[in-house]
Amino acid sequence: MRVLYHFPLSPFSRKVRLLLAEKRLPFELREERVWERRPEFLALNPAGQVPVLVEENGLVIPDSVVITEYVEETYREVPLMGATAAERVECRRLVAWFDGKFAREVTDKLLLEKVMKRLIGHGVPDAGAIRAGYANLRRHLAYVAELAEQRRWLAGDALSVADLAAAAHLSVLDFAGEIDWSVAPAAKDWYARIKSRPSFRPLLTDRVPGVHPPAHYADLDF
Amino acid sequence: MRVLYHFPLSPFSRKVRLLLAEKRLPFELREERVWERRPEFLALNPAGQVPVLVEENGLVIPDSVVITEYVEETYREVPLMGATAAERVECRRLVAWFDGKFAREVTDKLLLEKVMKRLIGHGVPDAGAIRAGYANLRRHLAYVAELAEQRRWLAGDALSVADLAAAAHLSVLDFAGEIDWSVAPAAKDWYARIKSRPSFRPLLTDRVPGVHPPAHYADLDF
Repeated sequence: MRVLYHFPLSPFSRKVRLLLAEKRLPFELREERVWERRPEFLALNPAGQVPVLVEENGLVIPDSVVITEYVEETYREVPLMGATAAERVECRRLVAWFDGKFAREVTDKLLLEKVMKRLIGHGVPDAGAIRAGYANLRRHLAYVAELAEQRRWLAGDALSVADLAAAAHLSVLDFAGEIDWSVAPAAKDWYARIKSRPSFRPLLTDRVPGVHPPAHYADLDF
Repeated sequence: MRVLYHFPLSPFSRKVRLLLAEKRLPFELREERVWERRPEFLALNPAGQVPVLVEENGLVIPDSVVITEYVEETYREVPLMGATAAERVECRRLVAWFDGKFAREVTDKLLLEKVMKRLIGHGVPDAGAIRAGYANLRRHLAYVAELAEQRRWLAGDALSVADLAAAAHLSVLDFAGEIDWSVAPAAKDWYARIKSRPSFRPLLTDRVPGVHPPAHYADLDF
């Protein structure tokens, strides 16, 4: 059986869980607490990060972007990166936006400072970083809303990895109770649509000791 | 004519310059000082970063990974990402390693702290970050040497984007005089081989006001 090493609060792991489910590729989830630096896991991925996908033939694929390109090249039945060159550029541009800019400006600041430091028991939350994270989140939610008003899905007419990347980051923040959806109704409508897909269901039942998602987190009619 | 917006000290820009040259795709270079946040450039790439490639048909492609995937998909004559699934995973894994882990642990710490803060005239160098950057650089050079001892090129038998990504990061550090090649002879041999390729030549004549590369920087027999 295909195995995915992941952590519930890792947006990069969530993106790959959504990707594999949308591609209808069965997999077994194994939770990896990367900060414990387990030698067997470091042997799989010297970079020490989740996600890591291990195929049934033994091929080890680390890094969510490397996994995404591999899966899209190998399993072509459900294309999730667009057809034309322009569509593929737009899809990958948005994935890079959420995994790069959004991650640095929002996810790292709010999740790392407010949740992970407590979970790992290391470091003191930085109030300035948290304030900046909230301000950036408002700007980025407005950008998601702008895209969602112009297009059916974030990168164009079809669901793509861009939606999965955006939903992965926003869902970990929602899990931690950090999102006020009322400020960006079009973003909320888009998120409600992706949240109600079967691929999303397993994410709604994630549990992390010490983190208590708000009531609306698993509610499809939030 | 194809246009590449770049900055000489951006390793991500250098990776794409090497890529386009290895693919034998002519392009015009335009230097962009991204910290000046020029409105016309932000309209091309809202993320405000170099590199950005603009094709003759008007297609705008930001982000070095997005550009790499686009170029590899569109111009197939000189393949630079491996043939088999395993080769492509290894190539992309190493690109993600250098652009992610190496960039965060070495390039950002040394280049940002020692060179860019002075160039932009903003911020004071952080001595702790610089010390950590040098320690990380030694470990990473040893990893490059280990790969270079086992393989002809970093990802396998053929030159690939992994070599271009590694050379891009190491060359900006070498330009700033930060690398002692004597500590890792196998890494030096590999770097001498890639440095002597025609694609590398334009990088050796880069000039940045206020930054003075050491004598060995442009010397192919360093």
